[in-house]
This record gives sequence, C-alpha cells and structure tokens, in this order.
Amino acid sequence: MNTAHNAHPSSPAHPARVDLNADLGEGFGRWELTDDARLLSVVTSANVACGFHAGDAATMRRVCDLAAERGVRIGAQVSYRDLAGFGRRAMDVPPDELSAEVAYQIGALEAFARAAGSRVSYVKPHGALYNRVVHDEEQAEAVVKGVLLAGAVTGPLPVLGLPGSLLHVMAEKAELPAVPEAFADRAYTPEGSLVPRGRAGAVITDPAAVVERSVSLARFGMVTTQCGQPLSVRARSLCLHGDTPGAVDLARRVRGQLEAAGIRVEAFT
Amino acid sequence: MNTAHNAHPSSPAHPARVDLNADLGEGFGRWELTDDARLLSVVTSANVACGFHAGDAATMRRVCDLAAERGVRIGAQVSYRDLAGFGRRAMDVPPDELSAEVAYQIGALEAFARAAGSRVSYVKPHGALYNRVVHDEEQAEAVVKGVLLAGAVTGPLPVLGLPGSLLHVMAEKAELPAVPEAFADRAYTPEGSLVPRGRAGAVITDPAAVVERSVSLARFGMVTTQCGQPLSVRARSLCLHGDTPGAVDLARRVRGQLEAAGIRVEAFT
Amino acid sequence: MNTAHNAHPSSPAHPARVDLNADLGEGFGRWELTDDARLLSVVTSANVACGFHAGDAATMRRVCDLAAERGVRIGAQVSYRDLAGFGRRAMDVPPDELSAEVAYQIGALEAFARAAGSRVSYVKPHGALYNRVVHDEEQAEAVVKGVLLAGAVTGPLPVLGLPGSLLHVMAEKAELPAVPEAFADRAYTPEGSLVPRGRAGAVITDPAAVVERSVSLARFGMVTTQCGQPLSVRARSLCLHGDTPGAVDLARRVRGQLEAAGIRVEAFT
Amino acid sequence: MNTAHNAHPSSPAHPARVDLNADLGEGFGRWELTDDARLLSVVTSANVACGFHAGDAATMRRVCDLAAERGVRIGAQVSYRDLAGFGRRAMDVPPDELSAEVAYQIGALEAFARAAGSRVSYVKPHGALYNRVVHDEEQAEAVVKGVLLAGAVTGPLPVLGLPGSLLHVMAEKAELPAVPEAFADRAYTPEGSLVPRGRAGAVITDPAAVVERSVSLARFGMVTTQCGQPLSVRARSLCLHGDTPGAVDLARRVRGQLEAAGIRVEAFT
Repeated sequence: MNTAHNAHPSSPAHPARVDLNADLGEGFGRWELTDDARLLSVVTSANVACGFHAGDAATMRRVCDLAAERGVRIGAQVSYRDLAGFGRRAMDVPPDELSAEVAYQIGALEAFARAAGSRVSYVKPHGALYNRVVHDEEQAEAVVKGVLLAGAVTGPLPVLGLPGSLLHVMAEKAELPAVPEAFADRAYTPEGSLVPRGRAGAVITDPAAVVERSVSLARFGMVTTQCGQPLSVRARSLCLHGDTPGAVDLARRVRGQLEAAGIRVEAFT
Repeated sequence: MNTAHNAHPSSPAHPARVDLNADLGEGFGRWELTDDARLLSVVTSANVACGFHAGDAATMRRVCDLAAERGVRIGAQVSYRDLAGFGRRAMDVPPDELSAEVAYQIGALEAFARAAGSRVSYVKPHGALYNRVVHDEEQAEAVVKGVLLAGAVTGPLPVLGLPGSLLHVMAEKAELPAVPEAFADRAYTPEGSLVPRGRAGAVITDPAAVVERSVSLARFGMVTTQCGQPLSVRARSLCLHGDTPGAVDLARRVRGQLEAAGIRVEAFT
Repeated sequence: MNTAHNAHPSSPAHPARVDLNADLGEGFGRWELTDDARLLSVVTSANVACGFHAGDAATMRRVCDLAAERGVRIGAQVSYRDLAGFGRRAMDVPPDELSAEVAYQIGALEAFARAAGSRVSYVKPHGALYNRVVHDEEQAEAVVKGVLLAGAVTGPLPVLGLPGSLLHVMAEKAELPAVPEAFADRAYTPEGSLVPRGRAGAVITDPAAVVERSVSLARFGMVTTQCGQPLSVRARSLCLHGDTPGAVDLARRVRGQLEAAGIRVEAFT
Repeated sequence: MNTAHNAHPSSPAHPARVDLNADLGEGFGRWELTDDARLLSVVTSANVACGFHAGDAATMRRVCDLAAERGVRIGAQVSYRDLAGFGRRAMDVPPDELSAEVAYQIGALEAFARAAGSRVSYVKPHGALYNRVVHDEEQAEAVVKGVLLAGAVTGPLPVLGLPGSLLHVMAEKAELPAVPEAFADRAYTPEGSLVPRGRAGAVITDPAAVVERSVSLARFGMVTTQCGQPLSVRARSLCLHGDTPGAVDLARRVRGQLEAAGIRVEAFT
C-alpha cells in the first residue's frame, strides 16, 4: 500500500521544487468554509469541490475565475454524492455509477475552468473516497475510468493521491500520471501510512513543526515518523489545509520557508 | 411574446423538413420514467436531463451512448435544481446562480456526449424554467449567459424554445441560434401561445389529431387554434412526449406520417 | 447471526397467524414505484418510506391516509440518506448521526400517521441499512437509539428485521420488541441466512413455489433451503414485494392461500 | 397587508414584556452558521431549522437538547425544500405538497423536542416562504394546513409572523394563535412594512439604534419609520439575528437594555 521506506538521506535526491495543493470552494450556497481568496495567494494547485460534497455552481465559477487570474492550477476534487456528510462517509457505490459520477463532476468543473481561460489540470478524490481508493481496487479502478471518460473533454489528467495507493496503481495501468502527495501536518507510521485521524498525535498542530516537516519533505523527501525515525516519502506535492482558523497563515509561512530554503514552489503540471 | 400570426397558407412556405425532439433520461437512480431506448429510435434530437430535475450520471452516460450510436443529436435539458418537484416549480433563482447552474449542467453532459463520440448540440430549458424564460427577461438572460459560459467547452450552442420567447430574444442578442419548436399535442390560443395545462382541451389526446397537426405544422407551419382558426406557427422542431403509456407509439406514428407526406425528418443542427 | 436451526416439524409449533408486510410509498415527486393502493388491499403492515431513500412528504401523507382507512399498520421504513442510490449503498454513517436521522424519519412519519388517525406502529430499516445492521453492532445500536429517541413521541416501537440479527439483539437489550420476518421469495442457506442477491437462485420467481413456501413458513415455521433440507425459520411476519410487474397479484395469491389454509393474516402489533 | 398604524403613544399600551426569537441550528453537516450555544443564552424562543433550508438531524437534536436545558421555547422554522438556496428563493410549490412538507418538518422536530423533554411550541416560516405568505393566500393557507396536520402530534400551534400578513389571517381563521413579531434592526416604511433588503438603509447596523428601537418596540409598540415618523407596530416578539459577527453581542445588549428598562423578557407561549 505504500512505497515509502526508511533511508538515510545523504543528499537532496528530490528535485528542489514542490507543488502546494489545498481544498477550495468547499462552501455550499449560504455556507462558507474555505478562505478561497487568501488560499489562492499561497497554493499552486487548487482542489476545487465539484458539487457532490460541497461546492455549488456559482462558487465553482468564482473559484475558477480567481484561480485562473492568479495562475493557480485547477483540479477536480471529486467526491461521493454526500452533502450531508461532506463526503466523509465511505459508500458502497457500484463502480459504473462511481465512474459516471466522477466524469460528471469533472465535466461540470471543466466548463468553469475553460470559461475562466484555464483548464482542469488534474483530479484528486476527496474525503472518504480518497481513503477508500487507497486500498479498494474496484473503486480505485472506477475513479480512474471516470477520469478517462471525462478525458474526452479534458484530455488525459494526472491523478493526485497517496503514494502507493491502488488509485495510483490503477492510474498508471491506464497510463495516467500518478502524482504523489505528502501531508506535513499529519503523523506517519513507520510503514509510511498516515496515523488515522482521531488517534493521539495524528494531526500535528505545532506550526513550527509543520513548517520544518514541509521543508524536509520538499528538500529531502524525508519526514520523521511518530516513533522518531526518518521515513522516505516520495511526494511531488504537499497538501495544505485551509478550513481551520490560522490555517492560511500557516500555509503562507510554509510557502515562505520553502522559498527561503531555495525550493521552487510550482505546480506539478 | 409570440411572433406567430394568422395567415392563409397558399403554399408550403416552410422547407419540408422537421426535427423531432423529446425529453429523455428523466429517471433518477432507482426510478425510471422515459422509455429512452424506444424514443431514440424515433426522435432526431434528445433533450437529455442533466441531474437537476432528473437524470443521474449513469443514466446520462447510457442515454448519450445510445443517442450517439443512433445518430440522434444530444441536447442539454437544463433545469432548476429541484428533484422533488421535477423542475416544475418556478423558482426565483438569482441570475448569477442560474447562469452558473446552467453551465454546470451543460458541462457535465458534455463529458458523456464526448465520451460517446458525440457533442452537446443544443440547449433546451425544462419545465418551469422553460415557461419562465418565455416572459422573464432576467432569467432568460441568465440562461443565455450560462450557455455562453459553457460555450468555452461546447462552442456556441443553439437554444431550443418557444418562438417569440424572451429566451429567444436574448439568445439572438448573444448571437446564439434560436430554434423555434411547436407542440402538436397542445392547443394554441389565437394569439399563438399555448393553452395552459389544466385548462379544458389544453392537451390533445386524440392520436389522429396529433398526427394531422404534426404534418400541418411541418409542411405549412400552420395549426388550428382552439377557436378553430388557422394560425401560423414558425417551428423548426416538433416536441414529442415519451412519458405516458402509448406515447412512444404515437411518436412513431407521427414520424411515419411525416415521412409518408414527403417531409424529411432530420435534426436541426 | 441467525437463530434458525434444522428440525423435523411434527405439529404446527407456530400459532396459525402471520403478518404480511411490504414496502410502500417508494416513489419520489414525479416518480412512482410501488402500487400503493393495490398493495394496501393485501398487506397488514405497510413499511412507509420516510424521505431518505424515497417518499416525499405528500406521498407519505397519502399512503398514511390510505393505510389508516384500510386498517393497515403503518411502519417507518428508515434508511440512509441516499435518494440517488435508493438507500441501497452501505454508508459509514457515524452512530450519532445515524440515530438522529432515524428519529427524524420516524418523527416526520408520525405526523402523517396521526393526522390520518393512526400511529407509527413499528420500525423497519431499508435496503443497505437493513443488511448492515444484521452484523454491524455499532450501526445496529445506533438504529435502536434512534427508535428510542423517537419513542418520546411514538412510545416504544417494535423493530421488524431478520431473526438473529444484531439489530434484534440490540433491540431486545433496549427492551424493544424484536419482530422476526421471513422471505418466501428468497432462497435460504442451510445456516438460515439469505442467499445474497445476484447469486444463482437467490430469488424464487416461480409463483407456485412462493405461495407454497409462504404457507409452510406461516404454518410450520419451516422452509426448504437451497440444498433441499428443511430449515426452521422463526417469523411473525412475511415480507412481500410490490415493485415488480405481477408482484401485487402474487401477494394477493399468497394471502388467499394462507387464508385458505386456515392461517389468520393479521398485523403483529 | 399590515395592521400597523401611526399613533402618538401616551402610555405603554403594550404589556411590559416581550419575547426574543432568533434562527438557530442553521448549519448543515460540516457547515456551521449560527452560534447556537451563545444565542440560547439570550433568546427565549429558538426558531430551529428543520432540514429543508438548513439543519441536519444531529444538529436539530443538539439544539433541542440545549434549548430544553435552558428553558428556551422550541419553534419549527419551516422552509421550502432548498438547501442550495438556503430557502431564500421563492418557489411555486403546489399547496398540497407545501402542506405536507410543513407537517413533515414539524413532525421531525417534535421527535427531538420531546426526546429533550420539551415540545415544539410554535411555527415560523423561513426566508422566501416567510415573505411569500405575507401576501400569497394560497401558500399562506397551505402553511396553516400543514401546521394543522402536524397538530395531530403537537396540538394546535401558534404561528409567528409579520403582523397583518395573510399567514396570520389564515391562522386566525383556523383558530391558531397568530403571534406578531417586529424587527429592531430593519427599517419600516410609513405603511408599516419592512423596507426590502437591498434598498439603502434597509438594515440598521448601528448597535445603539437597534437597542433603542428594541426598547421602544417592547415598551410602547412604537418604532420610527425611515421617514422619521412614529409608527405603531404590534409585536409580541422581537426577532434577533445571530448569523453575523457581533450579532450575539448585540442580542445580549438588547436583552440587557430591555431588562434594565423593566421589561420582562419571556417566551410568548
């Protein structure tokens, strides 16, 4: 499930550049969640909610317009159809339905991306679907098939996800680029998977630690596990969060330190 | 509101060809409504529901595949967001939201149309939205703006609607083709508008009368009003219905009689 | 998971009476599914959809009115919130949310039941939730807690479900009556569980066989497994289906044969 | 439409007591809006969202528990079915559907109110429905019929609304108490109606003015119109808002000043 492995880094094996991605447009109608305008001044890739877990049409349009204006890449953050649960509840969706729902979301977003003068540049599953396609081959394949269906409009799209996930295995089988990401604010097990939310220490809240881990991940492809050992994590993108107070400030600080460390912050596409 | 006018037809002023359109894919999940497979053997243009009043993603895909296979044009049947009311309840949607919702639906459908090797070829509003944009300038303009937004993916699309509607006025202002349609199974007033559903005689149920009116509309652009007078109705397409028992048989009969009368039945695009 | 066991029936151990239940009101807005009026002339207990997988408010009202008129018991057929999937997709709903959603549905239905001069008399989970609470203790307990919450309005309600399910275990812990049901048109394994849908022979389609099994279940509490052996199945109610052509006729025939065999067909409450 | 009229108050004609109501529980799933816990320490009546414009089941439960704990009355804030538009878009819902939807919402809320040891004590329409039933007789009657339907569970409920509205006319015809409310933070026309949102000066943002108007409304039943003249406004309740920054602080200040002025702040039921 995870290709990360322990290693002593001798030199920066990874190219000194990294993408920063975050979830955006996660309001719905009257409700707001993400501080889209400020986040778009920090990240290089915007995972835009497509209406199934969040993101009404007017919000999608607005976020695409802003992202295009600032040169931020637009990605389709596809989800189970579950507004009430914010896409955080795993669902046994039959694969044909899931493929169609993924294509539907990408197609809808592409209209706004193009109207803004941009394109949908990648796909990233959201929430429970993200977690499920790490290990569920049927759903992983269904998501990839949905990306291929929408490819008739968008062309072949990279798939952003957890390194070693079945989603990435299936994407590569389908000759879609598999882009690995890491989480600077999440604890890793020695095996290279994320400590599940809810467990003690799963989320790293100390801003200084998050910044330090970001630089280590981007420069060396290394992070310290919760047991204190070095772990190699292959990642072309770092996922930042924007839905908590102070999150945008932290994201800005991460970006500042990456740049100060001589790492180029740029989109992966 | 309506450009139809009384006239004595001396010769077939209209070219002897006509498009037949019908609403398709109007099931949702477990629920079915339209007999899509049979309707697609009759019509030349399929108004495909896009998920807002009916039409889940898997159904949209299936209908697009079938339509493409049979050479039937695919149109986006856009609606208010109202599954519970099947899009039949007028809603005061602010114009920016409405435009975005229209573009969202077209974009989603385009993914399936293209995956099937076809394209979205036109847009037709559904139900309460169809009726509202006959006379509501703000919503008519909003729908047209939505079509233009999606045009970044689809190119400029014809708008199918009631002749003389504000939707058509706004479409033409925006340099989108306005395609007029007529209803062989609905009674017309002397002023050329439809007798509202619910009034006596609003819907014509005698199959022979529907067939006769179809031929008259297609050949002469003429129909008899409920007062018995001839009325000129400009129409490039006839709208057939497929959601009642016997409807598909009637549609088939209409097509047969049109062809027997030497009228070419072909898509307007 | 199942308390059924093999046995040689010597005499009718079960009282010669049985309840007949069926799912009703499973349309939504424009869409119809179940032939409610005809089913209500056959069954003694109506599992009324409460809006989460099917069943808009106006339909719920209409079904309650009809059921009350005919003396049919009204049950709340509670479901995951999943209109697009008709409640047939298992969902990882956190227990607190699930309890609240169950109480919400029961409360809503109680308004229509009381307005019709009746009451909600029992609860039966629908679809994927029905299957999940057979073996998922957390969700089984959550459903029971939801029934208890709503009990502040309805009083303690019996829970209709699979004999031996964890739902029934948890219901009994909470001192709610657990009412077992059997399926005359489904094949049973030697262990007493249902052969999963999709497997060969899972659904028994021969009307004569369904009728014969119904009588055997009601009179002797016995059914023949797919391996041809007798199986004891404790059931106070038989579940009939009304969503396929011919289903209502079959239901009527089942009831006729039960009565002809001297079995009293009456509600369990 | 409004029974308010100009008058010179000589003495406090109104009893020196007033109810304070506010909308609560207007989040949905992941999204929060109203600061329920703090608002419940200020108001005497809580208009709880019932799931149609906002308010998932778990939130409804939580708000009812808190309200019951603090002795705050629970009211059903019923709405059009419109999560995407937060119930702010007028809809042409047929009266039978609207009545059933109103009863559905009240019934669902009653389950949580009773489970918390309280009851639903009144009904208040939300958003576009609130505005529509001021002048739309058909929908006003439909809402009242819905309240009567649910009355089989709740008993006859008072209806909170605009004085002089058709909602109140229809409520009184049906022998339901019609409870008038006023808005201290909204400008009134000389005719006694609210200046529509969006017009200049429609919303009064100066906290001191809002406090002063609250006291004047509660003590004298008087408010100054936007033209500077005194207007008599009959109101048993004042509506406060809790969905903007500083709103709860202002509400608290209003309550403090009312009490300092010797006015009893207490629920109307």
